Amino acid sequence: MNVNGRPYRTIWLKEDDSRIVQIIDQRNLPHEFNVEDIETVEQMALAISEMHVRGAGLIGASAGYGMYLATLAARDSDDFSASLDGSYERLKATRPTAVNLVWALDRQMVEISKAESTEDKIAIALRTAQEIADEDASFCRRLGEHGLPLIREISESKNGEPVNLLTHCNAGWLAFVDHGSATAPIYAAHDAGIPVHVYVDETRPRNQGARLTAWELGQHGVPHTVISDNVGGHLMQHGLVDMVITGADRTAVSGDVANKIGTYLKALAAKDNNVPFYVALPSSTFDWEITDGVRDIPIEQRGDEEVKYAQGAIDDSVKRVLLTPKSSPAANYAFDVTPARLVTGLITERGVCDANESSIRALFPEK
Amino acid sequence: MNVNGRPYRTIWLKEDDSRIVQIIDQRNLPHEFNVEDIETVEQMALAISEMHVRGAGLIGASAGYGMYLATLAARDSDDFSASLDGSYERLKATRPTAVNLVWALDRQMVEISKAESTEDKIAIALRTAQEIADEDASFCRRLGEHGLPLIREISESKNGEPVNLLTHCNAGWLAFVDHGSATAPIYAAHDAGIPVHVYVDETRPRNQGARLTAWELGQHGVPHTVISDNVGGHLMQHGLVDMVITGADRTAVSGDVANKIGTYLKALAAKDNNVPFYVALPSSTFDWEITDGVRDIPIEQRGDEEVKYAQGAIDDSVKRVLLTPKSSPAANYAFDVTPARLVTGLITERGVCDANESSIRALFPEK
Repeated sequence: MNVNGRPYRTIWLKEDDSRIVQIIDQRNLPHEFNVEDIETVEQMALAISEMHVRGAGLIGASAGYGMYLATLAARDSDDFSASLDGSYERLKATRPTAVNLVWALDRQMVEISKAESTEDKIAIALRTAQEIADEDASFCRRLGEHGLPLIREISESKNGEPVNLLTHCNAGWLAFVDHGSATAPIYAAHDAGIPVHVYVDETRPRNQGARLTAWELGQHGVPHTVISDNVGGHLMQHGLVDMVITGADRTAVSGDVANKIGTYLKALAAKDNNVPFYVALPSSTFDWEITDGVRDIPIEQRGDEEVKYAQGAIDDSVKRVLLTPKSSPAANYAFDVTPARLVTGLITERGVCDANESSIRALFPEK
Repeated sequence: MNVNGRPYRTIWLKEDDSRIVQIIDQRNLPHEFNVEDIETVEQMALAISEMHVRGAGLIGASAGYGMYLATLAARDSDDFSASLDGSYERLKATRPTAVNLVWALDRQMVEISKAESTEDKIAIALRTAQEIADEDASFCRRLGEHGLPLIREISESKNGEPVNLLTHCNAGWLAFVDHGSATAPIYAAHDAGIPVHVYVDETRPRNQGARLTAWELGQHGVPHTVISDNVGGHLMQHGLVDMVITGADRTAVSGDVANKIGTYLKALAAKDNNVPFYVALPSSTFDWEITDGVRDIPIEQRGDEEVKYAQGAIDDSVKRVLLTPKSSPAANYAFDVTPARLVTGLITERGVCDANESSIRALFPEK
């Protein structure tokens, strides 16, 4: 998508030096837009663990490029295989719970092992890294293609008025390589000339909506309005939202959707006001074992400092301010689960389906 | 209620100098606890308009004491009556939409007019100011008495485990003279030895929960946990909330409740999980004319800077940080309306009633 009028992905090979990977350092967005050179496995490991890059799709792509850098380092070492194994372990330890990370690392190890010579191993690692990134982008583009008709249909009833969408957190291109999941249909509609306007939940406590989604949309020229997380219900009561669209962190085969904390409240408001509530997700997000998401999807609890403080810009530097009394405890549940009964439909790379097991399995019969 | 172990109201006459009113300056709470001397009508007017004091009950009490200061100023002037009228107009202009303000000012004018001599006028103004404050405190205490049995009943089924309450915004003693509205039953239960624990919604964008409610509860020794506004639904899904209790800014005679933005989302979650949802309110909060609150209660929209920034403490001073891209627009709806069908009951100074017109009118037959 566009940044300052120029198309970007979240990760790419440096144009004039193929030994260097470049990423957007997302830590201080939207206040600072920094492109970072990643030249070593250790730099990539830190970029993942310290969240210069984040989001399931982008973590996988970063791991893929990290293994390419690992082959370059192995070439200069005494023992190619031992060096490669060390890099694999270093990258694997960065975000132990991210499924895409291990998936990309293992895919690289299998591919690299197929080549005989060192130079072939390097070439195949580079090609695989680019394939992983391209697949992620292409997959997100397909989410956009399948979601676009839903927005177009609403638009046709609005006589040229913008379709008002509401989204929560950042399921945008910054979380993937390009397009995003929840944002993909929005970008597709915007690029197709359909007038859209997005209400962006700020998404406390980490403010991924206010910081990242608002920045993405603004850079790509999509009209949007930031709102506090409390506002969506009021907007839906008054007909100001035509469709809610979010991403997902894990979706039970029953259709229950785990996503950023607060998603469930918006789904309740959508149901109460007959507003369609869609979830856009990669099929890799399905959990084929869990049939009761509210009961069985584990919910991460994070440190209380994210709730007690807010991060933002002051005097052109990024700082954090204490919001609460110093001694007040805070709880920080990172996700909640929206029951399938509140979900209008799931937008996947193979099309749109109802949020229930038979509809999901009909789209993915091989699972 | 207690601050640093000592009982306080939000406004009082200075102990050793009855020409001075003292207030808690709430602007920089919880980071700074400042008691401010108010010696002139102009100082009181600024304290109201610049929100050193806020909240319906406290605004009324401040106006009452402001008119007492006005009689002192009038005594030293050339024309008692002209001076008093000027003070009345100055105070009335501070917060033109606050019903309690005009009510308190008018009550003072009527009382002061009953006395003949200047000294009698001053004495009656002081007595009336104290009556207004005492009535507010006593009225809130009655909300506590009527709400206490609801909490006690839950406690009796919990085998000594704390009753978990969830509240939104600050309907605490800082918004009144003492006790508060939503907090009154909580303080009453705590003081009666019933174990309670309060989940405090931070209440973006102005963070009245994180700043004021958490501070109040902590100072009075009530166990509490601050949460982002996104969390309540998850807690209720998992049986972690026994009762939701909020205040109200305006309640239609049909039982529809206008309160701080985001209240509606919590009411939806309470309904979806069979958690009782109570609203504690002064009867002065009823709007006896409106029968469809969602349609007819006007919702204030405030400046976008409250959404784009967050205020907090950094290096022991209070500052604000920019959360969003500078160029992103933000919308700031201050209130929403919870339909009566989601409200379990209304706690008033005359007792608890259902949220419908016949039940409300049965408690207040004279209206």
